[in-house]
Amino acid sequence: MPYIPLDENLPGITGLLNYRQDTALPIRQLTQILLRGESTLTEGERELIATVVSNGNQCRFCTNAHTAAADVLLGETETAEKVKNDPDNAPVTEKMKHLLEIARQTQVSGKNVIADLVAKAKQAGATDLELHDTVLIAALFSLYNRYVDGLASVTPTEPAFYNRLAGILKTNGYLPSANRYAALNAD
Amino acid sequence: MPYIPLDENLPGITGLLNYRQDTALPIRQLTQILLRGESTLTEGERELIATVVSNGNQCRFCTNAHTAAADVLLGETETAEKVKNDPDNAPVTEKMKHLLEIARQTQVSGKNVIADLVAKAKQAGATDLELHDTVLIAALFSLYNRYVDGLASVTPTEPAFYNRLAGILKTNGYLPSANRYAALNAD
Repeated sequence: MPYIPLDENLPGITGLLNYRQDTALPIRQLTQILLRGESTLTEGERELIATVVSNGNQCRFCTNAHTAAADVLLGETETAEKVKNDPDNAPVTEKMKHLLEIARQTQVSGKNVIADLVAKAKQAGATDLELHDTVLIAALFSLYNRYVDGLASVTPTEPAFYNRLAGILKTNGYLPSANRYAALNAD
Repeated sequence: MPYIPLDENLPGITGLLNYRQDTALPIRQLTQILLRGESTLTEGERELIATVVSNGNQCRFCTNAHTAAADVLLGETETAEKVKNDPDNAPVTEKMKHLLEIARQTQVSGKNVIADLVAKAKQAGATDLELHDTVLIAALFSLYNRYVDGLASVTPTEPAFYNRLAGILKTNGYLPSANRYAALNAD
């Protein structure tokens, strides 16, 4: 039961973004630029960053949603599963391993991103902009996770919900659109 | 020494917002709406929320900056000092005491915002929108603190720097403007 009156057809972040749309717009725009804008990181890689941060914060809605988004973008489920639960053996590039570790540490505290982690990522080929974006995506999901759980929004339990949401995020991205979530609660 | 090349005349968040201006714009817009937009919380009260979250994350740049902003908006330094170090005796309303505690818990984890805290804030007169905004401001500064420290931006030590920054934030708010920081490094 959310702490504030949210549309019961819009669980998780969707109800919150609908509750206050003037604050939702820049949050959506920032997410669209970082996760769907031009980048040397693939959309799937960027969803993995969102996934490990949400998983670290134990935000179930966000973890489920971005795991599903990564799965649909990568075309398989092994990578998202492993970056959460067996990161050493995740089938990602060496560069992504280091960037994902930077994201995990950013989730705990910005101060945990020590110079050694950054040096390793750079040695593995990470650019300044990739470092910047990794930290900012991790910081953005530190916002999302707190927004979703801090107001006790509803977390659907059925995987089909997150698959539908992931399809919307793959096709439409993060910007607002008419009837955006019309298909979200369909059977 | 920052991990990425930032303008050395723009310490803390200012260099980061200058480094990638397309992501900076929605971050600034969200901050302007939440901290300077229409609200039943005063601008000073909202800066106190930013202050306690930044203090909880031990982000020195953000704590100094928003303490100085709260001080200049409130016209005194006792309140910001006490909400950080002696919250039970801080000269704020009962409602703000509860909202600041919700902000402190949001800083740790969204899951720490338990129903009892929310009930107490509502009993003290907090509205749904005030609860929403408190959690979202706390979530936003959870982003800022990680952005600032995760990329090792520079933290000025002299109080005069933060007083100049607070003057800019009071007069101009958070939106970008030409020569915004021209006076920041003046003696």
